[in-house]
Amino acid sequence: MTLAIIGGGQLARMMAEPAAALGIDLRLLAEAPGVSAAQVIPAHTVGDYRDLDALTAIVAGCEAVTFDHEHVPTEHLHALEAMGVAVRPGPDALVYAQDKGLMRTRLGQLGAPCPRNAIVTSVADVEAFGIPCVIKTTRGGYDGKGVWFVRSAADCADAFASGATILAEELVDFRRELSALVARSATGEVVSYPVVETLQVDGVCREVIAPAPDLAADVEAETEALARRIATELGVVGILAVELFETTDGRILVNELAMRPHNTGHWTQDGAVTSQFENHVRAVLGLPLGATDLRAPYVVMVNVLGGVSDLAGAYEKALADPSVKAHWYGKEARPGRKVGHVNTYGDDLEDCLTRARRAAAAMTTEGMEGDA
Amino acid sequence: MTLAIIGGGQLARMMAEPAAALGIDLRLLAEAPGVSAAQVIPAHTVGDYRDLDALTAIVAGCEAVTFDHEHVPTEHLHALEAMGVAVRPGPDALVYAQDKGLMRTRLGQLGAPCPRNAIVTSVADVEAFGIPCVIKTTRGGYDGKGVWFVRSAADCADAFASGATILAEELVDFRRELSALVARSATGEVVSYPVVETLQVDGVCREVIAPAPDLAADVEAETEALARRIATELGVVGILAVELFETTDGRILVNELAMRPHNTGHWTQDGAVTSQFENHVRAVLGLPLGATDLRAPYVVMVNVLGGVSDLAGAYEKALADPSVKAHWYGKEARPGRKVGHVNTYGDDLEDCLTRARRAAAAMTTEGMEGDA
Repeated sequence: MTLAIIGGGQLARMMAEPAAALGIDLRLLAEAPGVSAAQVIPAHTVGDYRDLDALTAIVAGCEAVTFDHEHVPTEHLHALEAMGVAVRPGPDALVYAQDKGLMRTRLGQLGAPCPRNAIVTSVADVEAFGIPCVIKTTRGGYDGKGVWFVRSAADCADAFASGATILAEELVDFRRELSALVARSATGEVVSYPVVETLQVDGVCREVIAPAPDLAADVEAETEALARRIATELGVVGILAVELFETTDGRILVNELAMRPHNTGHWTQDGAVTSQFENHVRAVLGLPLGATDLRAPYVVMVNVLGGVSDLAGAYEKALADPSVKAHWYGKEARPGRKVGHVNTYGDDLEDCLTRARRAAAAMTTEGMEGDA
Repeated sequence: MTLAIIGGGQLARMMAEPAAALGIDLRLLAEAPGVSAAQVIPAHTVGDYRDLDALTAIVAGCEAVTFDHEHVPTEHLHALEAMGVAVRPGPDALVYAQDKGLMRTRLGQLGAPCPRNAIVTSVADVEAFGIPCVIKTTRGGYDGKGVWFVRSAADCADAFASGATILAEELVDFRRELSALVARSATGEVVSYPVVETLQVDGVCREVIAPAPDLAADVEAETEALARRIATELGVVGILAVELFETTDGRILVNELAMRPHNTGHWTQDGAVTSQFENHVRAVLGLPLGATDLRAPYVVMVNVLGGVSDLAGAYEKALADPSVKAHWYGKEARPGRKVGHVNTYGDDLEDCLTRARRAAAAMTTEGMEGDA
């Protein structure tokens, strides 16, 4: 079995671990030499994911093609499908992760609970929608980029200057953020992971707690069912991450969709029977999916932002806790950059949090206080 | 951090998984293009492990060098050490895994319990030692090769015809075989895994049960302590596997030593907090070692011998059990060849065994009955 992956970031790198275990050959289209996944996938080519010829070359002889990111142009995905390539997730699903405007429209049709939203083309539109609000480019944003919090009309300037299509959404009064991860195989089989709590700072995921503490059982069940329904209705193949708000009045609203292994699922590597990366690989190849059960009462993930140049020195401290599981992406240290993460698990949530935060702090020169 | 590995078999391949997770760069000297580990380690060179120039080239710029097998000539390891390379395990330790005669002498000096043994140079020597017995080449044997069971003088012919140095050992009347795995870091830190029960057929490991069922607590503790002491006294760096007999009269005797990740430790990938492969990599780089605790009451490993050409078809059946963890080495199917293994874990040992055997059987065309 041979699987092509487009994009050489850490998600592709982390797909390579279960792919190696399962004996699945990978081919990678990397954006530059030496990027994260190119360090661990021998059969890689450097090329542009916007170049149909590069895409066509990498998928030749592969059972399927999947993605490290959602930026491949939809028309290229359709072109590959027309050639008979198994594009997973396919363009008809992926477009809802690529375009927040289409996503909101489709989720509205499905009756999925969303923040109030509208496409806006002018400051007057935003004022009519209601300020304060959030405005976002419908395409291309990630990790807080392409998102503006609007507290006065002046805050809209950058967004409209960008020339992008802009979506306005109500400012949700939320208690916390949650994430519901599901895997859907090319066979149609769907499995769901326990709903997790996520801590985002400036639009960047910092910590994840699995399962989400004190989430009412009926809300947990409804949220898993919602994510499964979205995956099926949208025809997703692979991992679907549904990022959610839990509002102060107890409602669950869909914030974002991602159709690939997701930062809010990194805990599964050490905390679930089957990691999201393994289930993504199994799903896109149409293999049976693995169990999603937790392997401990609590699992915590803490991201490492920034990084260090002396990894061995960092590990002297971070791995002094013998039960910490460290993950490093092979990326150069840079302020605010996601360069790794730490997983811990156990019976005591506070202990897991303390240990994971301590280990993650040892793996970066970046203070947690300064940039929060 | 960069680590060189000599030998491109499945042990090197399985070291690559935790190395990728930890952000450790690997360089591989592979014996041929496309071998198991070369499929997952981009920085590989094809060369001969008996060629000092090839060894010297691969270790340049690496923090340490370690091994997929024990066949690198001792004089080359000394030459690398003389150049300042961190050879782990070093030649002064590794020689006891390479040469069973030296191993028996050294273990005797340490007072480690061993079967009665003697170097023999003629059939008369063997008769004087006592028939029945086992005779073995002191160097180069593995998986039952280079081992002869002597029930009459005629059974010695092949051994002496080989021209190799031959060790005779008493035929041990054993209840079962056990294995004690420890990791020793370059810093001197030692950790031990729970002692496991192993089922060998014709000298080839078939199944492993962790922990060894019904092993008396004091025997378990003494056996772990014995393995830790051997690792320390011999100056092992990395994983040491001590294969043992539990005799019908309740004694523990050392059978073999291996100084690398070992088939009897594959269960740790899915059943321990830290896998033997991760601890090997951490040990040889002088990093702190990870916890060796079991993650379930029972863990079972079953080897896949022989294999299949249609892996996807095999996975349809093997992975229909969503909690089975399958491992495949990327090797071509061949009768009796180790091509993969399956791990299962849970509260019920019989259930784990049944599930692992069923999944392993689905991954090979080789019947378990025919070749036992």
